[in-house]
Amino acid sequence: MSTIKRLLIGKPISSADADHQRISKTIGLAVFSSDAISSTAYATGEILLVLVGAAGMTYGNGSKTTDLLIPLAIMVAVLLALVVNSYRETIHAYPDGGGAYVVSRENLGETPSLVAGASLLIDYVLTVSVSIAAGVLAMYSAFPSLKEYRVFICLGFVLLLTIGNLRGVKESGRFFAIPTYVYIIMLGAFLGFGIYQHFAGTLHVFDATTAEAQAQIKEIQEVHGPFLGFVGIFIFARAFASGAVALSGVEAISNGIPAFRKPTSKNAAQTLGWMASILGLSFLGISFIAVWMKPIPSESESALSTMGREIFGNGTVMYYLLQFSTMAILVLAANTAYADFPRLAAIIGKDGFLPRQFAARGDRLVFSNGVLILAAAASLLIIVFGGDVSALIPLYAVGVFTSFTLSQTGMVRHHLKERQPRWQLSVVNSTLGGIATFIVAGVVIISKFAIGAWVVVVLIPIVVVAFKGVSRHYKSVGRQLSVAPGPEAPPLKTGAVVLVGSVNRSALMALRYARSLHAHDLVAISVAIDDDHTERLRQQWIDFGITVELNILDSPYRDLTSTVLAYLDELDRNWGHDYISVIIPEAVVPHWWQSIFHNQSALALKVRLLNRRDTVVVSVPYHLADDETLEPGPALSKPKSGATLTEARQPPGEPYAGYT
Amino acid sequence: MSTIKRLLIGKPISSADADHQRISKTIGLAVFSSDAISSTAYATGEILLVLVGAAGMTYGNGSKTTDLLIPLAIMVAVLLALVVNSYRETIHAYPDGGGAYVVSRENLGETPSLVAGASLLIDYVLTVSVSIAAGVLAMYSAFPSLKEYRVFICLGFVLLLTIGNLRGVKESGRFFAIPTYVYIIMLGAFLGFGIYQHFAGTLHVFDATTAEAQAQIKEIQEVHGPFLGFVGIFIFARAFASGAVALSGVEAISNGIPAFRKPTSKNAAQTLGWMASILGLSFLGISFIAVWMKPIPSESESALSTMGREIFGNGTVMYYLLQFSTMAILVLAANTAYADFPRLAAIIGKDGFLPRQFAARGDRLVFSNGVLILAAAASLLIIVFGGDVSALIPLYAVGVFTSFTLSQTGMVRHHLKERQPRWQLSVVNSTLGGIATFIVAGVVIISKFAIGAWVVVVLIPIVVVAFKGVSRHYKSVGRQLSVAPGPEAPPLKTGAVVLVGSVNRSALMALRYARSLHAHDLVAISVAIDDDHTERLRQQWIDFGITVELNILDSPYRDLTSTVLAYLDELDRNWGHDYISVIIPEAVVPHWWQSIFHNQSALALKVRLLNRRDTVVVSVPYHLADDETLEPGPALSKPKSGATLTEARQPPGEPYAGYT
Repeated sequence: MSTIKRLLIGKPISSADADHQRISKTIGLAVFSSDAISSTAYATGEILLVLVGAAGMTYGNGSKTTDLLIPLAIMVAVLLALVVNSYRETIHAYPDGGGAYVVSRENLGETPSLVAGASLLIDYVLTVSVSIAAGVLAMYSAFPSLKEYRVFICLGFVLLLTIGNLRGVKESGRFFAIPTYVYIIMLGAFLGFGIYQHFAGTLHVFDATTAEAQAQIKEIQEVHGPFLGFVGIFIFARAFASGAVALSGVEAISNGIPAFRKPTSKNAAQTLGWMASILGLSFLGISFIAVWMKPIPSESESALSTMGREIFGNGTVMYYLLQFSTMAILVLAANTAYADFPRLAAIIGKDGFLPRQFAARGDRLVFSNGVLILAAAASLLIIVFGGDVSALIPLYAVGVFTSFTLSQTGMVRHHLKERQPRWQLSVVNSTLGGIATFIVAGVVIISKFAIGAWVVVVLIPIVVVAFKGVSRHYKSVGRQLSVAPGPEAPPLKTGAVVLVGSVNRSALMALRYARSLHAHDLVAISVAIDDDHTERLRQQWIDFGITVELNILDSPYRDLTSTVLAYLDELDRNWGHDYISVIIPEAVVPHWWQSIFHNQSALALKVRLLNRRDTVVVSVPYHLADDETLEPGPALSKPKSGATLTEARQPPGEPYAGYT
Repeated sequence: MSTIKRLLIGKPISSADADHQRISKTIGLAVFSSDAISSTAYATGEILLVLVGAAGMTYGNGSKTTDLLIPLAIMVAVLLALVVNSYRETIHAYPDGGGAYVVSRENLGETPSLVAGASLLIDYVLTVSVSIAAGVLAMYSAFPSLKEYRVFICLGFVLLLTIGNLRGVKESGRFFAIPTYVYIIMLGAFLGFGIYQHFAGTLHVFDATTAEAQAQIKEIQEVHGPFLGFVGIFIFARAFASGAVALSGVEAISNGIPAFRKPTSKNAAQTLGWMASILGLSFLGISFIAVWMKPIPSESESALSTMGREIFGNGTVMYYLLQFSTMAILVLAANTAYADFPRLAAIIGKDGFLPRQFAARGDRLVFSNGVLILAAAASLLIIVFGGDVSALIPLYAVGVFTSFTLSQTGMVRHHLKERQPRWQLSVVNSTLGGIATFIVAGVVIISKFAIGAWVVVVLIPIVVVAFKGVSRHYKSVGRQLSVAPGPEAPPLKTGAVVLVGSVNRSALMALRYARSLHAHDLVAISVAIDDDHTERLRQQWIDFGITVELNILDSPYRDLTSTVLAYLDELDRNWGHDYISVIIPEAVVPHWWQSIFHNQSALALKVRLLNRRDTVVVSVPYHLADDETLEPGPALSKPKSGATLTEARQPPGEPYAGYT
């Protein structure tokens, strides 16, 4: 087990090495921006699906449907500028990271911070599901025969990312930088070729009047066009909500500031600037090209693939490179969430709102528990939604914009409190960002409520209530355990009970250990199995001259546990000690699977005893050898203090009759 | 949990009540004979499938195919007489039951007895699968729409029987007696009506020349007729092997003798006589009627149903009663195995060839572990073979006849040894039985090897090897633990280590308990989490005036378990004591699910410590209340011995920082 673990996730890293794990801006851009930048691969296509679904058969036939893309893209770009502008303030104000959760906690109080935390955690899960599903869509856009295996391919990528992230952030970063940059280059080529071809007049324009195209449009309309004849503004809002998905991931850098090299804030802010420029420009560029080319969207092929096929030529190396890098950056975009989910869970865990295990660093400096929970939740979503990007999109973005809004609102209060130089400008920036993201959050929830957003709207309060429950539990435990200094209490008065099945080395060792405890009272007990066995045990007790009193308990229902518990109640009444130590001899086998042959009753008893008041459970192991030719437990055969317990071996005969 | 258990399986039964659980002959016939008698419902049909598969299109067209049924039925009846005759000897010679396993063990030695044991256990599993599958076949013979759900219906019956048997044998017996007797009556009616109609000349004869019948025959031929043109003797042998299946279950009574009222042997032998008469006569009777009616066998309807439909009239109450009672007795036939599998497993377990859990009686005087294993194995077979009787039949009977042969051979040696009155006759009886069953075992294996019997032929030796492995393990453990009387060893020299996370009530209680142990050395250890925490802990140690020495262990890899283990190695070298007691304070929460919030590291550590040499694990629980307004653990707040540990509560503030 341990060897496999090391092979998969590498050597442990000591705390002292933690600083060396920090990453450069170039790698930071790849690790924290792949989520945001990669959304260019599907956001335009998702807008088109909504618009064409609404426009229906009029699409392409001289209608202005695609022209709406331009104002939508500009709105998204403006929104991006506002949000990024506001997040630069956050990065400088909170260099320790934590993003929306920490900002809300410091400025808005507990409940808003928990809402932000819940939103972000849910969103990270969706980032993994949506990005991987979209990456696999890019794959079967190029190779349609893979479509039927998409759920399995998605799950394969989740597994790959999980192993990669359990190995630690730096190696992941290097590994992940290559595809991110290849994608950015291919996107540049796509835009360059497209713009050149447009002005040279050679850009392909799709014909929506062919029978094939009409059939395709009809199909989309059936799935995405339930609002045909509905007010246009609603369609526009829903299309905008689909495009706004591109902003998810922008907050990633502000959560991960401490992962950057020093000066961390400055490096993080610069990386954020690069990211926003690349994202904004390429989103606008793709939208322009889509307006020119009027591609017919489809569930089986992404719009980027449809257009790239024409711009680069079908079957060319350039086209395949575009598709492969799209797939790669999307699958790796999920890595943004893998970097941030465990980090945020650890912060929330440290504040006592999540089980403490989330705050415990694994031995590769990453938060293994968070990584595993994230992987499980994302896999579940992929399975439930059949790996369909369009089905997952409506769930997405609710969390992003909720946390954006809380974060910006928090920053407004922060600036008003701190009044640092140029605070007036900062207040304006954050207020604009807050209002914009608040409106978008509302738009997303309303326009997509019925088709999936409700899930997240219901889930966020549930998670918040769970957070508060966890906190209440830990606080209650803390109060119950807390104690003020005082004089040291005197030792306890304890009694000891040794559980014996038959007289053998294991039982004798437990008895010997029990005698060394110096308890106020000591008794050995055995639960009667049958008369023969009881008689033999009594005789052995005499033969071995054991000085500890033996009590054989009658058990009409042959139930070890309840018989022992009843006897302990009796001892409590008779002895009146503070504590009773129950000493259980346990035969420890050399191989774990051999334990099915032993200690079954002892295990059940131990669980029950732990729940008994004033009862200490003492396990005295006796180690068995693999082969009987080996020496038995050295503690018995070669006592270090020269004890004289008889070592003679009996011939094989009487089988072991301990409690099993 | 416990309430649900009681509801399903009833109140526990005390050992003293065991005698009242014994059953009468009338109920014994139902409990132990349903297996044997119920095989009349499918045995004839299975022979017909083989014969018609071989004869093919000539069937019914004046061919003599069905006429072979008569010699086959007579051969099976003769075999039955020989076997029953021999088993009567066994019942009187071995009144404690155990059947083939015990007889082989006493007379032939270990390996033959284990072969018999393995054969029987495998056969009981097959009894459950085949009987339930055949019972469900009877159901969808009457209601064809149920056919597609057959696997689920089969599994439902397994579940029902499992619950019934966990409740105990007597109630099961009464409950099961009714359908057995209804089936016997319906079978009598079937035979009576059939014979009357034959001699009155009104008995329906099936016409195999219709297009429908020919299509049905062709289908059977494709599945069951790969030996067309093969030597006739092989077909005859295979048909005989299918018929011999009817004998399975004959040994059930000899295994279950102690369940009968006293005089057990006499009652059991009489019941065996009744059973054999009913089985033999009805098998012969059905075969004669089949020869007269020439039914066309089918995979979708049993031969008994096809014939019953004509004799009683389709849709009549009599016909449905026949089908329902067939289903009922077949499903309940599985109960024979439910009664015997756990009993045999317990005997084998007591001999040390199976894990000891099989020998532990559950609290309803039945062997719960055996019941559960049987249910699981039978369910697996039903799923793998899709609930198809004809697919399961070839696996069946190998085990039966192997154990029959061993049992009779054992009886021959028994008579030769004991030489009781009339031993010469007994030797002849047993020898005849032995030779006959040996030949049949060979016939079954050879004629059905390729179509399934090989599974059992491979499985029996594997199970025997496993038995021997288990025995070797227990014997090795027994030898390692066994010890001869000698002077009592002096108490051990022990050191104690208390694991502390922070200074709280739970840790203080553990420290107090540790001081009461009077160990030769005592030290408290804490694994460093961060500098702040370490500093606070040191300060608290001083503030509380704790006299136990505190060691804070550095843990570069933040791994509690390995840090503690390394420190214990150091202590071993420094102290040189016999044993180290590791004392772990454990916060015990009022609800089991709350334990995910606590003790995760402690649990991992305990598992590792149990495997460490010369280390005793001591769990000191501290019981937390559900609501913080309740008093904390009474042992601390109201020490019985008047200890003075400060009880002041701190205001809620510092959260609990124990090991989680």
